[in-house]
Amino acid sequence: MRLIAFGESFVQGAGDPDHLGWVGRAISGRREISLYNLGIRRETSTQLLARWEGEARLRRVDYEPMRIVFSFGCNDSHLEDGAPRVAVAETLKNARALLTGALAFAPVLMVGPPPVADPGVCARTEALNAALLALCARLQVPFIDVFQPLEAGGLWQAEAAAWDGAHPGAAGYQQMADLVSAHPAWRRFIEGGE
Amino acid sequence: MRLIAFGESFVQGAGDPDHLGWVGRAISGRREISLYNLGIRRETSTQLLARWEGEARLRRVDYEPMRIVFSFGCNDSHLEDGAPRVAVAETLKNARALLTGALAFAPVLMVGPPPVADPGVCARTEALNAALLALCARLQVPFIDVFQPLEAGGLWQAEAAAWDGAHPGAAGYQQMADLVSAHPAWRRFIEGGE
Repeated sequence: MRLIAFGESFVQGAGDPDHLGWVGRAISGRREISLYNLGIRRETSTQLLARWEGEARLRRVDYEPMRIVFSFGCNDSHLEDGAPRVAVAETLKNARALLTGALAFAPVLMVGPPPVADPGVCARTEALNAALLALCARLQVPFIDVFQPLEAGGLWQAEAAAWDGAHPGAAGYQQMADLVSAHPAWRRFIEGGE
Repeated sequence: MRLIAFGESFVQGAGDPDHLGWVGRAISGRREISLYNLGIRRETSTQLLARWEGEARLRRVDYEPMRIVFSFGCNDSHLEDGAPRVAVAETLKNARALLTGALAFAPVLMVGPPPVADPGVCARTEALNAALLALCARLQVPFIDVFQPLEAGGLWQAEAAAWDGAHPGAAGYQQMADLVSAHPAWRRFIEGGE
């Protein structure tokens, strides 16, 4: 199976000394899964919308099933010139286009954004997380909510604060991977055949 | 620093239960390196030539240096309808275009292709490895030759034979990563600043 992961720096695994991120950790030991990690640092959902399909198409083959996982929202919530880089309504429009477009390719799953250190960004990301969860429910796309568990644990943000203010280290990424891989929706997502 | 890795399944890390491949293993512990692993299984140098620049451009930023590593050749050497998927002259033409094009973006390094189980493919890959080494010398692109060490060790091909005939497991990928990361050209490549 080919697993394509689209999203921002947390998907790419920025700051992980093991270069796995939560995605690589969530499929540890599964040799039969070929991972294409297509996370890009600082990318917004608007930028992702412009490139995901071309990159997915180049990695699709007719002889092996594909799965697509998305995780974004933090970069949209950052301020630029006093306003979020992408407004909530626009993020939701982008998310709808991404998810429905990807569903035409393959089974799709969304993992919600993690918390970040900056309180303003974090509050906007939390609101976006709830809105993305509701959108996914309407589209019948499985959604794995990691925001509250990561924030409550404190490890994620403590590691981020000790590094660059945004990205955790190995333990934080492992915690996010554990939340994802223990979720029944993830198990259905990567266990199933075509 | 952003490290972009372009190539085929060995770059992508097919069969590695740890989902690192040799690239992830070669930068283990280096948190400051953001890895963009853009290997695609079965891809030839002709297909890579058509897509590398668009994908590199989307991952380039003006505030952080970039490095580009290439590794290809095995898929070109596979037979299709009785002839190699890409003829040697064409591979070299593609390689020249890839390397000179990428040098306009960032410092570039090439890692030669590893051996494969099929004797015919392996012999053609070995010849291609020598030709790519010579081309890189002419272009002054550092080239790390892993073919003979991996073949002589036997581990790479033993692991491949025990899996899918082409791809090793964790130990094989680690051996290739060790060859790469111990090479002075690799250390210069990832140590340097802009």
